[in-house]
Amino acid sequence: MSTSLKNDRFLRALLRQDVDVTPVWMMRQAGRYLPEYRATRAQAGDFLTLCKTPALACEVTLQPLRRFALDAAILFSDILTVPDAMGIELYFEQGEGPRFRKPVRSAADVDALRIVDTQRDLRYVTDAVALIRRELNGSVPLIGFSGSPWTIATYMVEGGGSKDFAIIKQMMMATPALLHGLLDKVAQSVIGYLNAQITAGAQAVQIFDTWGGVLSPTAYREFSLAYMSKIINGLIREHEGRRVPVIVFTKNGGLWLDVISTCGADCVGLDWTIDISEARRRIGGKVALQGNLDPSVLYAPAEVIRQEVAAILAGFGQGNGHVFNLGHGIHQHVDPEHARVFVDAVHELSAPYHRHV
Amino acid sequence: MSTSLKNDRFLRALLRQDVDVTPVWMMRQAGRYLPEYRATRAQAGDFLTLCKTPALACEVTLQPLRRFALDAAILFSDILTVPDAMGIELYFEQGEGPRFRKPVRSAADVDALRIVDTQRDLRYVTDAVALIRRELNGSVPLIGFSGSPWTIATYMVEGGGSKDFAIIKQMMMATPALLHGLLDKVAQSVIGYLNAQITAGAQAVQIFDTWGGVLSPTAYREFSLAYMSKIINGLIREHEGRRVPVIVFTKNGGLWLDVISTCGADCVGLDWTIDISEARRRIGGKVALQGNLDPSVLYAPAEVIRQEVAAILAGFGQGNGHVFNLGHGIHQHVDPEHARVFVDAVHELSAPYHRHV
Repeated sequence: MSTSLKNDRFLRALLRQDVDVTPVWMMRQAGRYLPEYRATRAQAGDFLTLCKTPALACEVTLQPLRRFALDAAILFSDILTVPDAMGIELYFEQGEGPRFRKPVRSAADVDALRIVDTQRDLRYVTDAVALIRRELNGSVPLIGFSGSPWTIATYMVEGGGSKDFAIIKQMMMATPALLHGLLDKVAQSVIGYLNAQITAGAQAVQIFDTWGGVLSPTAYREFSLAYMSKIINGLIREHEGRRVPVIVFTKNGGLWLDVISTCGADCVGLDWTIDISEARRRIGGKVALQGNLDPSVLYAPAEVIRQEVAAILAGFGQGNGHVFNLGHGIHQHVDPEHARVFVDAVHELSAPYHRHV
Repeated sequence: MSTSLKNDRFLRALLRQDVDVTPVWMMRQAGRYLPEYRATRAQAGDFLTLCKTPALACEVTLQPLRRFALDAAILFSDILTVPDAMGIELYFEQGEGPRFRKPVRSAADVDALRIVDTQRDLRYVTDAVALIRRELNGSVPLIGFSGSPWTIATYMVEGGGSKDFAIIKQMMMATPALLHGLLDKVAQSVIGYLNAQITAGAQAVQIFDTWGGVLSPTAYREFSLAYMSKIINGLIREHEGRRVPVIVFTKNGGLWLDVISTCGADCVGLDWTIDISEARRRIGGKVALQGNLDPSVLYAPAEVIRQEVAAILAGFGQGNGHVFNLGHGIHQHVDPEHARVFVDAVHELSAPYHRHV
């Protein structure tokens, strides 16, 4: 496998090295806002088949790159493939989102969980990674990903999505050792899973901690951040002669940036509720920052999108260590032409911030 | 109406005056976790009838005070009675939460909205306030409340609850003047509504900004905080010879405490994602603080509840200006006996923090 990359801005920015313009990608860039995605998904029949068929996962991964000047591809998959492989049977109910047939509630349930063996249980993911790398042919780097153990566990315990996380919080408060046992098994699974993605060709990895922000500061450290640190400590950090950077993204984690920046990640993802100038002041000396445009700005007219991009670039200011992104996944009802305005605005408006005088 | 109060700890703490122990109440303390509430609600037949029948609203307001040593009562009502009175027809779909028959999407929709005349449109609320005051008979103060204009507007525009607030954010980005027109009408309605509650006997008021935390820092200031300031500027601030304190609570607003503390409120509510010692350091010199136990701690065994209460009391530390509360409403599946442990722990464990040496 060749290690030459035509565009390595994204990897350089994650390591706070010089770049010509600020790199940009979009969380959920391969998704429902693209008509070609909807067509491929219809061809697959259902969402899980799309995830589990490497040729189709590769196709939707590449679709946004054919349209926009993105600086990275991200593997198309789902954070719930890991708990599915652990044995609790993921399915999707029409209009209801993900569900698990066997939610985890007791010590016996935790004992029954398999630690994922990626080559046995999630081969379709590493096959997709290898295929995407071949198709990318060095144009931009490929990001692998996983959910955080806490985030994955919320679905496993609640049996699906949740509004108040009552069941897992009850477990956390009444039987914390049981929850730690579950989180530990998920973390072990994720380490193997991400390392398999890296070995198959992922050049950076992101850990999505979508639900860490529903915890108190102390519970966050104990039940979410500790397991992300554990994962990072277990990852392959050099591959193909390059460092493999790690991004950690806790939605609603802005109050905890100082402690998040010590977890071992090279880059911390920001949602749109924090001013990026404040984030840089607090942790920009230690890690790169990724973010942080409110995805709903993409509903705005082009001039407003450009103004909001300009405000974030000005907020971060001169110098290195910024990967532009949305503060959460792109919404399904956004016009793809607005995504183009966004991506192009980042490149065009960021050049002055990278000039060396 | 008598102005003597047997227990004025709550009002004193809001004004950062001396108290013997830290006062405590619980958001949604009159609610589904109480079997007597469920019985009264069944008697009413449906939720809106419960809100609209003063004798029943009074009954459920008083129920938690008969069980627990709470330092304040809060009017039982709903933040959506205001938009209902503005003419967009609230109803509740079985298992689906609140819905509006005529969501607000266009300039014509905004023009068609009535400014609420509380004595004409929401007389049932002020009747309930007067009745509750009579029944309380000076035992503890009564809190009135409203939703924030932004929070109310999310329901009006989306037509009900929302996960990503796509429609109102689209309005905010593409036609901000239209949204400002809507927020202004809601704010005018809320000013009259809260003043009517104060005149009828509410001794403090809280503005619930449940959804302000989904905005960016600049959008929050422009579309949520500005309208809460406007309301506070329009309120009666002295009644029955006492100051009427105002509490502002923005869920997920922890990053913005500094600006929130300048909005004119006497007290800022905290959810559980911020360490109260940090909050006090940042704004405790300007306003009182209310909060901030994670409501799911009430699922824990009694000893854990007491430890978590102790940790928050220690975090706030010695001195005045703290009203203990949960960081959000009490969950419906909490055992009422755990609520009692919580309330009693606050009183018992806080005494040392108020001793004058």
